[in-house]
Amino acid sequence: MDQRNAAHTHVRPDGPGTTVPVGVEDPAVATDREYLRRAIALATLSPLPDPNPRVGAVLVSPTGTVVGEGWHHGAGTPHAEVEALRAAGAAARGATAYVSLEPCNHTGRTGPCATALVEAGVARVVYAQPDPNPAAAGGATTLRAAGVEVLGGLLAEEAEEVNRIWTRAVRLGRPWVTWKVAATIDGHTAAADGSSQWITCPEARADVHHRRALCDAIVVGTGTALADDPRLTVRHADGTLAERQPLRVVVGDRQVPPDARLRSDEAETLFLPGGDPRRALAELDRVGVRHAWLEGGATLAAAFLREGLVDEVLVYQAPALLGSGLPLVGDLGVRTLADALKFTITDVGLVGTDVRITMAPATKEA
Amino acid sequence: MDQRNAAHTHVRPDGPGTTVPVGVEDPAVATDREYLRRAIALATLSPLPDPNPRVGAVLVSPTGTVVGEGWHHGAGTPHAEVEALRAAGAAARGATAYVSLEPCNHTGRTGPCATALVEAGVARVVYAQPDPNPAAAGGATTLRAAGVEVLGGLLAEEAEEVNRIWTRAVRLGRPWVTWKVAATIDGHTAAADGSSQWITCPEARADVHHRRALCDAIVVGTGTALADDPRLTVRHADGTLAERQPLRVVVGDRQVPPDARLRSDEAETLFLPGGDPRRALAELDRVGVRHAWLEGGATLAAAFLREGLVDEVLVYQAPALLGSGLPLVGDLGVRTLADALKFTITDVGLVGTDVRITMAPATKEA
Ligand SMILES: NC(=O)c1ccc[n+]([C@@H]2O[C@H](COP(=O)([O-])OP(=O)(O)OC[C@H]3O[C@@H](n4cnc5c(N)ncnc54)[C@H](OP(=O)(O)O)[C@@H]3O)[C@@H](O)[C@H]2O)c1
Ligand SMILES: NC(=O)c1ccc[n+]([C@@H]2O[C@H](COP(=O)([O-])OP(=O)(O)OC[C@H]3O[C@@H](n4cnc5c(N)ncnc54)[C@H](OP(=O)(O)O)[C@@H]3O)[C@@H](O)[C@H]2O)c1
Repeated sequence: MDQRNAAHTHVRPDGPGTTVPVGVEDPAVATDREYLRRAIALATLSPLPDPNPRVGAVLVSPTGTVVGEGWHHGAGTPHAEVEALRAAGAAARGATAYVSLEPCNHTGRTGPCATALVEAGVARVVYAQPDPNPAAAGGATTLRAAGVEVLGGLLAEEAEEVNRIWTRAVRLGRPWVTWKVAATIDGHTAAADGSSQWITCPEARADVHHRRALCDAIVVGTGTALADDPRLTVRHADGTLAERQPLRVVVGDRQVPPDARLRSDEAETLFLPGGDPRRALAELDRVGVRHAWLEGGATLAAAFLREGLVDEVLVYQAPALLGSGLPLVGDLGVRTLADALKFTITDVGLVGTDVRITMAPATKEA
Repeated sequence: MDQRNAAHTHVRPDGPGTTVPVGVEDPAVATDREYLRRAIALATLSPLPDPNPRVGAVLVSPTGTVVGEGWHHGAGTPHAEVEALRAAGAAARGATAYVSLEPCNHTGRTGPCATALVEAGVARVVYAQPDPNPAAAGGATTLRAAGVEVLGGLLAEEAEEVNRIWTRAVRLGRPWVTWKVAATIDGHTAAADGSSQWITCPEARADVHHRRALCDAIVVGTGTALADDPRLTVRHADGTLAERQPLRVVVGDRQVPPDARLRSDEAETLFLPGGDPRRALAELDRVGVRHAWLEGGATLAAAFLREGLVDEVLVYQAPALLGSGLPLVGDLGVRTLADALKFTITDVGLVGTDVRITMAPATKEA
């Protein structure tokens, strides 16, 4: 183990115990950190949301000159490493590649980056976040096998923050599911006569709209699709459609009428019959959805909850009482208090005149 | 209008517009303020809760010597002014009386304080909070008629803060009603099988216990009395009974069994048949209840809410979902969203692992 690797054990969160005293840092590691931080900054230029992780790469010559940089411009475009290699050309030979995420090892719409780095003659690769996919053999192994010096895990947490939801989705092997529900304090999403516009205040609705715009898919049950005939599109404040629209997803067997707003060409729509939440998520994963926004209604949400397929709950509560009306959530098969579905609150506060509570299943990490 | 009164218009919130520049204060007013602040401090020594307001009084001779002080020691004991007069004896003649609340004018368990001050030869009375009872002719009129110089309203807000709930109750002409409810995020106070212990976390339960100990009466419906057989007592952390117990009140027609815990001699219990919330509150007012703690259940709470007789709502929400169970509140006669009972949130935050929301009817002051 060389000097750099020894120092590295100090910062690697999952590495062995350190013997390096705090405050003492090898200047070479400081340099690595600096370029890696730049790679992470480049990663944040990648589009969000996207099925792919946001990645940045910096190529540095042995004399310390940046010879190429790149970041991922979205699904179907070259990976960050490939962008940087293109920019560097022949100067990539002998260089160190700083990448915010462990270079990929698989051939997707583009070739594996590990191979590209080897072929370009890169001498050393320093990456931040290790590949979270537990099944995939990471690019580090491929690189090392080809004789490239590899250092991984430096600034891993900072890099992971840039791909928070993507990382979770990859670890879960399915989309990360946020269930959003808007209700009164007494847990009704609509009054007895079905009226529900608007339960929550404009600020809460804007907050919802903003958050769901950052998701990959908006999921509703056929009940909501038929009852509300929703557009499920992301619109600017002036009412015009945003350029990027999340996938609209309707889960359930019933047919949605041909003239339903959901069938407009404003956005793509996926109809998923069968009613199995796990299979629905597998299908969404297959089409590149990392963050699914479960919009309701109560029946579909209950089905996801029963299967343990809700990762985060956003509850918007209006300070109003109805005394009767539609329930916040459908039957969960819970008969006694001890069997209640338990959560941990990660955030609570006012949004406009309403309360917003964010919570995660108590058994899972927030 | 003398110099002091002229300056006084500057501070009296309900007085006429001032012409006294901000920052300029008559030294005599500064002195008045000082002694009045002492009277207010003495008021806070009075017991809480109590049917009577907390009042403090300071008697000051024309040469500036404090000749007597007093505060109210609780229902049935002499008022603060009388305490101060006793302490002063003959020295009260010609003195200025500083009182945190306008001296009373009515003969209750003790005689009117206004008369007592006149008879003792007090030359001047400076009081802070005016009598909030809109019906009662205040003591100020009686004092002025007897030739006593009277200055009222100085530091009124500070003084009112010492009698927050009492003032509201007197203005309303009935007890101030706090409705407390503990439920899951989806608005259930118990699971389908009736189990409800414990929905909320220990910290939330301790918070409830602490708050209801400061009330004059704990009110439940016969439904809760019969279903839960509650003690409705205030207990110390070690389980022993607190010295002072709020009145226990059961509203409804059904008989509570002779061996019900509510009938223990741990505290007094009042049974109010008839089921009219307004008449129940009138009866509580008559027996000296200023702050009623409406503990439930859902049916009785709904009855109070329908009549507009809930002044404050404390909702404790556990981050759990049941999907079915007892409702947070009973039928409110609301069919459509526009008719929902609306509130304004005055406080929201975590208590232990639960959310506590405090809210007041949107049409009323918080
Ligand atoms: N306040 C809010 O946040 C909010 C959000 C959304 C909706 N809503 C309201 O909720 C109401 C609709 O709620 P809802 O509960 O009737 O509709 P829903 O949950 O949207 O849809 C329920 C339907 O989904 C299908 N489904 C698919 N997978 C299922 C599964 N695993 N288990 C059970 N059903 C499955 C079933 O229909 P098939 O027979 O077709 O398979 C089922 O009837 C509307 O009034 C809407 O306004 C409120
Ligand atoms: N989680 C919480 O914060 C909480 C707090 C308290 C209770 N609870 C639960 O609530 C349940 C009991 O609730 P509940 O709704 O059945 O009982 P409730 O509200 O305590 O009592 C209802 C009864 O009160 C009487 N009543 C008096 N005045 C009334 C009026 N104006 N309108 C209607 N009824 C009036 C009626 O009985 P008569 O026929 O005798 O007049 C009625 O049946 C229990 O399971 C208890 O555990 C939960």
